[in-house]
Amino acid sequence: MTFPTGSRFKDLLALGHDLADRSGAVIRPHFRRPIAVANKAGKAAFDPVTKADQAAERAIARMIRTRAPEHGVVGEEYGREREDAPFQWVVDPIDGTRSFITGTPMWGTLIGLLYDGAPVLGLMDQPFTGERFWSAEKAAYAREAGRAARRIRTRSCERVADALIMTTSPDLFESGAETDGFARVKREARMTRYGGDCYAYCLLASGFVDLVIEAGLKSYDIVALIPIVERAGGRVTTWDGGPPTAGGRIIASGDPALHERALKLLNR
Amino acid sequence: MTFPTGSRFKDLLALGHDLADRSGAVIRPHFRRPIAVANKAGKAAFDPVTKADQAAERAIARMIRTRAPEHGVVGEEYGREREDAPFQWVVDPIDGTRSFITGTPMWGTLIGLLYDGAPVLGLMDQPFTGERFWSAEKAAYAREAGRAARRIRTRSCERVADALIMTTSPDLFESGAETDGFARVKREARMTRYGGDCYAYCLLASGFVDLVIEAGLKSYDIVALIPIVERAGGRVTTWDGGPPTAGGRIIASGDPALHERALKLLNR
Repeated sequence: MTFPTGSRFKDLLALGHDLADRSGAVIRPHFRRPIAVANKAGKAAFDPVTKADQAAERAIARMIRTRAPEHGVVGEEYGREREDAPFQWVVDPIDGTRSFITGTPMWGTLIGLLYDGAPVLGLMDQPFTGERFWSAEKAAYAREAGRAARRIRTRSCERVADALIMTTSPDLFESGAETDGFARVKREARMTRYGGDCYAYCLLASGFVDLVIEAGLKSYDIVALIPIVERAGGRVTTWDGGPPTAGGRIIASGDPALHERALKLLNR
Repeated sequence: MTFPTGSRFKDLLALGHDLADRSGAVIRPHFRRPIAVANKAGKAAFDPVTKADQAAERAIARMIRTRAPEHGVVGEEYGREREDAPFQWVVDPIDGTRSFITGTPMWGTLIGLLYDGAPVLGLMDQPFTGERFWSAEKAAYAREAGRAARRIRTRSCERVADALIMTTSPDLFESGAETDGFARVKREARMTRYGGDCYAYCLLASGFVDLVIEAGLKSYDIVALIPIVERAGGRVTTWDGGPPTAGGRIIASGDPALHERALKLLNR
């Protein structure tokens, strides 16, 4: 990648890791704090996660302003800052709100960087399990708690019949076209596991899952994950094969040959 | 609880913890080992998990033979040993096979103890995240990696409309009665999260989830979890309100008042 003078990939990635360290420290104390249910139906039930989400997004935006004042920031909670800048950080401090409020350690902090609209790098951080997944310039890496970083790669799996699918919930698919498309792939696949969120894409990048199929995603749900999956050897597109950066209906495959076959089934 | 002379609760629980330590050490190296997909469709895809499962069950059975030779053992892989003994350990080294093979840290090792057919104590161990949940004689406890054990309690949540539900997969429900029963509760509830396995019951015991509803369980899928949920303040029964020890269609509630309401909806 060619960036303006003074912007080196390794400095950008180092900033990404620092942002993840900071957001993890902010969010971690909020996870598995007791949540009273009484009189908390509806939106108020999500207060604790919203609070953690906002605090982390503020901390991330503050560090970007200090360390890279010329970069823009796109977040779930506060919208956009410096939206004309060529570099745009796209962040979602807690991807997997339902995981978070049920105490399930399957949520993650997503930090992605776009340059002229194209994904440059991404990180997914899980501060409870101490795991982090990220893209370097030409490869993807993962680190488990207390262990050294190791390179991750998707696995080969050409046939839908051999594929393990992950998705977050059957309720993601709202229209008949979405429900039917997903059902066609699921019917042919070897196995489907629910309850994924961002974690599913990282398991695909690590070579344990072959397909992730979702719908209704926002840009900040997917931008950070695209370079992780692609540099591990996989593909990410919309269901119609287009660029995934804006979100929507998303499919990720560990094996590019599998991607073509799954797209055909989704769109039959 | 009154046991035969020489069997003290604290010794039985200490043996339970030692069994969990041992099984965790046996299983942990098998988790997230690369699994080639090619030519591994069907049953062979489960080889790695079966291998870990069998090795852990052998290690557990061996320790029971040494430390409590008069106790029976019921396991998924090897069936029964000394099935007339009043004390029966009921073990499932890897509950959540689909979690395990996709690299998801939501599986667990279940170790339960029955005395004259009634659950005496239970442990759920997750060796990747370093978490353990267990029942003492009159309370339930949890320990996160590197932290002290703390008492856990279910939370109060009387109304289905306020409840967070967890279940493993929509595909658990096979008959029309099962699918419709679950759908009735889900429709009224605040939120449903998929991808639970044994972890869901422990999150319920910890006060983060209000209902776990499943079907098709075996005895070894539930025995260890019953005392954890009950001593944290919750209830576990079959969908018709009967004893859950044999498995089948199972519902667990954090709040006993909620249990009655959810049972009515399931069986309307």
